Amino acid sequence: MTNRIFNFAAGPAVLPEPVLAEAQRDLMALPGVGMSVMEISHRGKVFEEILQGCESDIRTLAGIPANYHVLFLQGGASLQFSMVPMNLLPAGGKADYIVTGSWGKKAVKEAQKLGTVQIAGSSEADNFTRVLEPSELKLDPSAAYVHFTSNETIHGVEWGDGKEPDAGSVPLVCDTSSDMFSRPIDVGKYALIYAGAQKNLGPSGVTLVILRDDMLARVPRNLPTMLDYAAQAKEKSLYNTPPTFGVYIMRLVMKWILSEGGLAGIAAKNAEKARILYDTLDSSSGFYRPHAKPGSRSNMNVTYRLPSEDLEAKFVSEAKKAGLDGLKGHRSVGGIRASIYNAFPKKGVEALVSFMKDFQRANG
Amino acid sequence: MTNRIFNFAAGPAVLPEPVLAEAQRDLMALPGVGMSVMEISHRGKVFEEILQGCESDIRTLAGIPANYHVLFLQGGASLQFSMVPMNLLPAGGKADYIVTGSWGKKAVKEAQKLGTVQIAGSSEADNFTRVLEPSELKLDPSAAYVHFTSNETIHGVEWGDGKEPDAGSVPLVCDTSSDMFSRPIDVGKYALIYAGAQKNLGPSGVTLVILRDDMLARVPRNLPTMLDYAAQAKEKSLYNTPPTFGVYIMRLVMKWILSEGGLAGIAAKNAEKARILYDTLDSSSGFYRPHAKPGSRSNMNVTYRLPSEDLEAKFVSEAKKAGLDGLKGHRSVGGIRASIYNAFPKKGVEALVSFMKDFQRANG
Repeated sequence: MTNRIFNFAAGPAVLPEPVLAEAQRDLMALPGVGMSVMEISHRGKVFEEILQGCESDIRTLAGIPANYHVLFLQGGASLQFSMVPMNLLPAGGKADYIVTGSWGKKAVKEAQKLGTVQIAGSSEADNFTRVLEPSELKLDPSAAYVHFTSNETIHGVEWGDGKEPDAGSVPLVCDTSSDMFSRPIDVGKYALIYAGAQKNLGPSGVTLVILRDDMLARVPRNLPTMLDYAAQAKEKSLYNTPPTFGVYIMRLVMKWILSEGGLAGIAAKNAEKARILYDTLDSSSGFYRPHAKPGSRSNMNVTYRLPSEDLEAKFVSEAKKAGLDGLKGHRSVGGIRASIYNAFPKKGVEALVSFMKDFQRANG
Repeated sequence: MTNRIFNFAAGPAVLPEPVLAEAQRDLMALPGVGMSVMEISHRGKVFEEILQGCESDIRTLAGIPANYHVLFLQGGASLQFSMVPMNLLPAGGKADYIVTGSWGKKAVKEAQKLGTVQIAGSSEADNFTRVLEPSELKLDPSAAYVHFTSNETIHGVEWGDGKEPDAGSVPLVCDTSSDMFSRPIDVGKYALIYAGAQKNLGPSGVTLVILRDDMLARVPRNLPTMLDYAAQAKEKSLYNTPPTFGVYIMRLVMKWILSEGGLAGIAAKNAEKARILYDTLDSSSGFYRPHAKPGSRSNMNVTYRLPSEDLEAKFVSEAKKAGLDGLKGHRSVGGIRASIYNAFPKKGVEALVSFMKDFQRANG
């Protein structure tokens, strides 16, 4: 597709080209249906197959045990910040939150409106450059749940495989918005996983929630139905009209991940892309300074600084002219952020690395 | 488009073909942008122009006064059923609800979880075949607000122009999900208007909220941010990632309505389509029995019964074979429902009327 550029945006983010091509082909009318997927009833057979097919592929991809519900909700991770405590934090209870970046902080802020939050660990004093060691966590065995953020999109800090906090018998809740399905996940470790779709799963407007069945017993009576996990699970995400187009795209994305070798296949590609980029940072003699510390580096969002803000602005501007878009870091961290989600192609990383070397030669 | 059929679905529903055609053309990459609209940052200039353009067209179309906010939210009307009382019903206050169908009843049920609801009028005893006369309403001048549903999608009952309840100085709140922008609307009469997009405005997953500025003073502190009208208004619908593709389609739909002569132009076309269909019902010598009473008939959802359920099933099945899809009535009302929203073409209504006459001749 010669008219497409390399899109390093942090989310909404790049989607697989085969997904876009199929959606484009069928946009006016699904084959044999005579209507656009945007125009069909969410209660008809065609959409039912899309929704069930999407759930089925998700279950296959992540090996989700039968005692978990897969829900397609709205409102993004930000609404989950409230729904989690509304549903799972009983009156008088306490919840443990582990904070390794801006999104974890936001989750805390929303939960504090609804109940008692304990900060079980935070790397804020280190400017969110790293995740935490087990010895740094003060986990309360009587907590209603432990919440953490597997990948901090803004800071580029990720809990690596097997390094996730061990909450023992306390239910573990994870915001996986920006690394969901970028690598294998042991769902059985978690009570609840949630993710806004717009990084690795599809367009914005769909939120994936994977929820262990025993959590539903905690849901208090008389929650607003839309915010009630038990009601949403009972109605299989069809209490009201779901974001049908978003679910359709997510279904295509799940098929694409399967075709790429599933989560193990995609994880290997993601690790390779990230390695190429971090190697370039580490071998730049300090011209490019990675934000995240080794061992905490995200495979999804690679964050780094240049010697000056002027050079950073020049970098972003020249990169854009070279067809490398979306590289400006979040205002709270500054510098450069290269988001290289599942659908981001390796050749885009190679193009960035080549640009970076040229830029350093010219400006270093 | 020879592969498209006539789609009478109640929502998600038919979209204008020029909208689908433009979305299809640009799906892989917006012109000059090099990325799909699904892939661009919601904080970048391109999406900013889409969002602001959509708001601007909405303001133009409906003549929205400057002291109103236009918000693009998620969760459909069902989440508004909760957000309205959360934001506008103070502790100890009462709200008046006027109920003329299933959606009004659902709104009551959700509001009752959050505060005191008074039923200011209901046509349930008449099986929701009509709206209410001013003399039938018991409005409490001390109510926090009066809520009604301008068009009941399931029952096919609509408050006609100028027949809307007069709440005096009490703020008037309206669920306009299924007749929004099908005709001119005097926004100045309302404190808050909301609509799920999936009938006349776009795909499911976007909720349009039009809110008078003085209502924000009522919003209690410490609501979950996503559910807080004041926060959403302050952030101009960008507190978190909005459903970007849905807003993009809505922008195209708004342009299309403008090209159709705006709300006055579209209203004339809608009235003509409905007249053709109701005339056919009324001149069928009782073979087709309209559900809604004259004066309360919806121009959006035309509901009617046949002499038997067997004939109704046969009607739906044969209609589908004739390329007329989505005509089965909602299970709670039965019979036939022809939804003929803005984008539904007059030739589709003519095709249905022709089919109905043939069907009556063969089965009457």
